Amino acid sequence: MRVLGLVVEYNPFHNGHLYHLKSAKDLVKPDFTVAVMSGNFTQRGEPSVIDKFSRAEIALHHGVDVVVELPFVYATQDAGGFAFGSVGILHKLGIVTDMVFGSESADEEFLVKTAQILHEQPWRYQEILHVKLKKGLSFPNARKEALVEYAQEASILDPIRIMNIEKSNDILGVEYVRSILRYGSRIRFHTIKRIGADYNDPSFRGKFSSATSIRNLLRSERWNEIRKSVPEKSFEIIKREMNEGRGPVFWKDLDMAYMAKFRTMKRDDFSRIHGFVEGLDVRFEREARRSKSLVDFIERLKTKRFTFTRLRRMMLHAFFEMTSEFMGKVNTFGPQYARILGFNDHGRKLLKLLKETSRVPVISTASFYRKALKKALEENLEIDQGLYLRMFELDTMATDVHSLLFKNESQRVGGRDFRERIRIVHTNS
Amino acid sequence: MRVLGLVVEYNPFHNGHLYHLKSAKDLVKPDFTVAVMSGNFTQRGEPSVIDKFSRAEIALHHGVDVVVELPFVYATQDAGGFAFGSVGILHKLGIVTDMVFGSESADEEFLVKTAQILHEQPWRYQEILHVKLKKGLSFPNARKEALVEYAQEASILDPIRIMNIEKSNDILGVEYVRSILRYGSRIRFHTIKRIGADYNDPSFRGKFSSATSIRNLLRSERWNEIRKSVPEKSFEIIKREMNEGRGPVFWKDLDMAYMAKFRTMKRDDFSRIHGFVEGLDVRFEREARRSKSLVDFIERLKTKRFTFTRLRRMMLHAFFEMTSEFMGKVNTFGPQYARILGFNDHGRKLLKLLKETSRVPVISTASFYRKALKKALEENLEIDQGLYLRMFELDTMATDVHSLLFKNESQRVGGRDFRERIRIVHTNS
Repeated sequence: MRVLGLVVEYNPFHNGHLYHLKSAKDLVKPDFTVAVMSGNFTQRGEPSVIDKFSRAEIALHHGVDVVVELPFVYATQDAGGFAFGSVGILHKLGIVTDMVFGSESADEEFLVKTAQILHEQPWRYQEILHVKLKKGLSFPNARKEALVEYAQEASILDPIRIMNIEKSNDILGVEYVRSILRYGSRIRFHTIKRIGADYNDPSFRGKFSSATSIRNLLRSERWNEIRKSVPEKSFEIIKREMNEGRGPVFWKDLDMAYMAKFRTMKRDDFSRIHGFVEGLDVRFEREARRSKSLVDFIERLKTKRFTFTRLRRMMLHAFFEMTSEFMGKVNTFGPQYARILGFNDHGRKLLKLLKETSRVPVISTASFYRKALKKALEENLEIDQGLYLRMFELDTMATDVHSLLFKNESQRVGGRDFRERIRIVHTNS
Repeated sequence: MRVLGLVVEYNPFHNGHLYHLKSAKDLVKPDFTVAVMSGNFTQRGEPSVIDKFSRAEIALHHGVDVVVELPFVYATQDAGGFAFGSVGILHKLGIVTDMVFGSESADEEFLVKTAQILHEQPWRYQEILHVKLKKGLSFPNARKEALVEYAQEASILDPIRIMNIEKSNDILGVEYVRSILRYGSRIRFHTIKRIGADYNDPSFRGKFSSATSIRNLLRSERWNEIRKSVPEKSFEIIKREMNEGRGPVFWKDLDMAYMAKFRTMKRDDFSRIHGFVEGLDVRFEREARRSKSLVDFIERLKTKRFTFTRLRRMMLHAFFEMTSEFMGKVNTFGPQYARILGFNDHGRKLLKLLKETSRVPVISTASFYRKALKKALEENLEIDQGLYLRMFELDTMATDVHSLLFKNESQRVGGRDFRERIRIVHTNS
């Protein structure tokens, strides 16, 4: 039996996603397809434009059989943490055989060899890295230069190919492979070339628009253009969510929530948060006071090195008080549960199998999360109780902050994680 | 030399305040008048409708010679903490001879005798109190019943008069006198009957409107009515602030800031906060998630015992993470500094004297607050360094959150405490 695992955001699901999904299935010919999907906040450090339940629903309509939520703590991290979480879930489900991801280069040899160096950390590589760091380079740059130099010395790989590790999907690809190695997972991976608009290109380009441009179209309610860019069922569900006033949700809507909180945080509070390196604590404290708004704030913080995406992620971590200490555990032990957001008729069988094979508790009813933990501990699963609880509670907190950003006040009630039922989609496939 | 000390909020300064100020001066015939005034949040747990600098400015125009800020930690407490802070400053200034406050009963014998019992805590009183508490009464009610019973037994005071301790100014009056006893202060106190509209009456009543009704008028921009209710200079300054977009600021404007934060707080976080007794931690956690808005939230929390005012104060304490441990220190050691918001020509002389007599550092330039601390420690003033710093930093954080609520975005820049100059008002008196 072949089970295809995908890592997705679907924010929102568009024609490019559908194309990618079909290509992946053509490649693997799986019996089942499971997607690990970000919850209500994405890797860009933003709230998702519509909520995770609707995004899961759309995915189930288009050929994903089971949607598992990528916990907030992983969904909002850089490539390394994001991959460690998502591959961790696919691996721990104990049933996924193949993984497919998009890649600009689709150069699998390069991905593997680079990942191997990062995983094995050969002594000579570490030495070069150390020298680079001492020269004052940032960690990502030092790492890249060390990789190039080491690959050259050891004649492992054409350094030119490592130099190309700038594209976001290749960086992520290396991290996926590295995580597979780290978990000692037997999942096979495949790459497919990305098509259509560049994900970050905000301009609108017809049938294959990026998720970013579709979000912009949502902001200005340009429904005709949206309709061209997303599959019909996706359009229908997005439209339904807008009509109910559950979106569109944008990062700027966090203005007051963020600024008020950050103005009560001092340097020492920031310095405890994951990722606050090199004087950023001082800068966050100072600029939160100097700025007149969230947009003003991020523009003051922005540097070549601290990109908007990275800063938005740091703000999320600061807002939810995700300390370095806690994130250290998160990035050591991996996901502690697999929360199911929905399944389709076909996926129901997979879900049944999953419950037997999974090495972490499978949560299909959120309100049983403590019960699921108890059972897992009784069955001697490798679960860290404190980590499990905090990780899950952060998912629910993230949802509760996300709901506050809905346009319709009556929809802003919290506890959606416990009120919304798991999505069950009936398909004819 | 007689120096009159007043405790005020002036939110905003109106005809009733002017009348009270004049009556107090007629009574004491002081050489100087100093007012301790709440900063950017008031005892009702609300942000002040216009900011503290403007409110100080107005007071200086109308016969207050020096305005000292009541630190946020005291300004936002119940009667006991509010009085301990405000009397603490008047006492520690070392130059105030007389204090005048409004009172519904103006029954000084009653105020003193009640305060004495509370201060001395006679053994028999404690015994009765203990029994009442064991019966399950809330602390304020148990205290009141114990006072009545003890006064009756000891034939100290007509218990009927204690029963009248419901009016807010009488409760505050008892606490003022108790604080005078507690500090062993030599300040003489005087009471004057309150006149005009009841402070809490939201209806509009011509020349003597309550501050509450004037704030409501500001909300609906009914300038003609406002003009009738406040002295001319007050009107002018309020108007100026509105034109600049620095208000009017209302409690409801905190909706997003509060709800987003409270939805990230768990029961244990709330239980550490000052005043979270008897399961309120559980209720705050639960209702923050069940509510669709801040107004919905407070209405769900409201009980006979937990009034809107008390709940708003608790929300402030939770938002600024003022723990029981910290507030215990606050309410043991008293104010650690006297921050001057402004003075008039006459007040300049008083300020000079103050700097000699004060037992706490007098801060006239906020950015020197660390320098002032250092000097105070060198001079062996009785200052707790940690308490001083946190108390002052909370004042600045409160200001920075308050500024975010301004109507005009460009006015929302933080750091007003350090940017705004001390108010100097030239008067001809």
